[in-house]
Amino acid sequence: MKVLITGGGGFLGQQLARSLLAHGKLSGQGISTISLLDAAYPANAVADARLRALTGDISDPEVLADACPPDTGVAFHLAAVVSGAAEADFDLGMRVNLEGTRLLLEQLRRCAKPPRLVFASSVAAFGGTLPDVLDDSTTPTPQTSYGTQKVIGEYLVSDYARKGFIDGRSLRLPTIVVRAGKPNAAASSFASGIIREPLNGVVSQCPVSPETGVWLLSPGKVTEAFLHASQLPPEAWGTNRVVNLPGLTATVREMVAALSYIGGTKAASLVKFKPDPRIQRIVETWPVRFRTPRALSMGFKADDDFESVVSAYIFDEQIRLA
Amino acid sequence: MKVLITGGGGFLGQQLARSLLAHGKLSGQGISTISLLDAAYPANAVADARLRALTGDISDPEVLADACPPDTGVAFHLAAVVSGAAEADFDLGMRVNLEGTRLLLEQLRRCAKPPRLVFASSVAAFGGTLPDVLDDSTTPTPQTSYGTQKVIGEYLVSDYARKGFIDGRSLRLPTIVVRAGKPNAAASSFASGIIREPLNGVVSQCPVSPETGVWLLSPGKVTEAFLHASQLPPEAWGTNRVVNLPGLTATVREMVAALSYIGGTKAASLVKFKPDPRIQRIVETWPVRFRTPRALSMGFKADDDFESVVSAYIFDEQIRLA
Repeated sequence: MKVLITGGGGFLGQQLARSLLAHGKLSGQGISTISLLDAAYPANAVADARLRALTGDISDPEVLADACPPDTGVAFHLAAVVSGAAEADFDLGMRVNLEGTRLLLEQLRRCAKPPRLVFASSVAAFGGTLPDVLDDSTTPTPQTSYGTQKVIGEYLVSDYARKGFIDGRSLRLPTIVVRAGKPNAAASSFASGIIREPLNGVVSQCPVSPETGVWLLSPGKVTEAFLHASQLPPEAWGTNRVVNLPGLTATVREMVAALSYIGGTKAASLVKFKPDPRIQRIVETWPVRFRTPRALSMGFKADDDFESVVSAYIFDEQIRLA
Repeated sequence: MKVLITGGGGFLGQQLARSLLAHGKLSGQGISTISLLDAAYPANAVADARLRALTGDISDPEVLADACPPDTGVAFHLAAVVSGAAEADFDLGMRVNLEGTRLLLEQLRRCAKPPRLVFASSVAAFGGTLPDVLDDSTTPTPQTSYGTQKVIGEYLVSDYARKGFIDGRSLRLPTIVVRAGKPNAAASSFASGIIREPLNGVVSQCPVSPETGVWLLSPGKVTEAFLHASQLPPEAWGTNRVVNLPGLTATVREMVAALSYIGGTKAASLVKFKPDPRIQRIVETWPVRFRTPRALSMGFKADDDFESVVSAYIFDEQIRLA
């Protein structure tokens, strides 16, 4: 079976590729090729004979035609201009996040057999005046262009699925913590930075207040969620092709306490608070607490606690750098 | 002030143009020109020195640039491929309903001052498993491509408004009954046909069962809603730029009873039931009952009862044919 990962050069795309290669199959079918599509790849990108790393723009139909041959079986759509960048450059976000998604759907529709698609949506779908605890019935009211583009992507995926063009599934991802590598332009970048940088002995400037809450999931758990979502039968979704993934709520203060507990007080002392009203404003529009009965009943899983999120990061880094 | 009506050749567009010309102003400002944009116009189209009727495709940027000069003050976006047609021809619906809306927003964004936009969305935003009575918190889960495209339009209008590119407002229209003129490709076309045709002495074939319920609003009331929506200050909307319009619930049986009461039993006997599973299936995905506290508090109004909807149609036709 042929697999496509858009955003395959990104942190999650690379981790997903690594996991797919290790499993070697999806829904019992052997994976012959994984095509990665991204604008760029890291220096230490995953290498494997089954991998095809394509460099190009997802809003270019020719690039998509190359990335997605007619016998593609499963596609993971992770490519996106992140929240902060899509807010700063509206046209870029519209081109990549909306037009790129629409063009990918059109390309998938041309496949010989309707391929399965897992779309990485986001908790940024929610914003504005929200209940204290969100649930499966909360209506998306995004207050960023990134969130708007993700919600529109969900509706497109659902309609293409309803029409039978694809077998689509959208996952609303919590903030992914702890991301390896460098800070990025996502407004949520700090949530990984305040753990990752101090563990490397580097100061991390936190742009939001200690009381700021974050709804989060670890890279390991979200990778499991992608694999699980792609292997659930269509009946498990029915007509509702969108799900809020389970997660964990932690305030920045609780995250720093866990860092202190696992990494030591010296590491924790490297977190410096330097308020950035632009970031605070974006992050405050995101929801902090959810009930996710639908996802849990479908078999999706959250991390147990924030300490295990930090420990998993340290463990993953040791393997990555070994 | 310059006004634009997309879909200006349609039944509602023509009625809105007539009403704007009669009022002569919006929000206290005199109307200098009304540009109508549509693919075609009826033979008896409204004529007035202030009207500019443009024929063209809304998915053509050059046509839009002509229709929407930089000093456009208010735009009413009514143009759409209707529900049945967008379901039968997916690509046509995507091009006109999604791409056309996106291009219109881009054109409005280029105006000297952010113009006000009233977007005609639809009750087709809702579908699938629904509560018996929908309200302002019900999440749109459209089960038609038309409904999907309308919801996506709403999200785009809201984000363009949030960014300050336009001052946008989306109205979710009930089924509009009684439409004058000919049946169209909308799956809801029967709801007007079963009143209009018998009143003209013509048999009307009703494709759905007598128990089928419809959430409806008269052409007069929806025209008032367009005018009202365009004149409400931004504060009346806040960050939520979408509203479910008030309406009236009637079953086909109740509609025929009202026809019999007002038009006579002979008229009512001209309604013949000829089930069409395709239409029944689409219509059954639409909601029938709403509570609309937000719209009512904002000053939007429904019809009193179905008898007054029929009477209003007869009165309007007499004026139109006079």
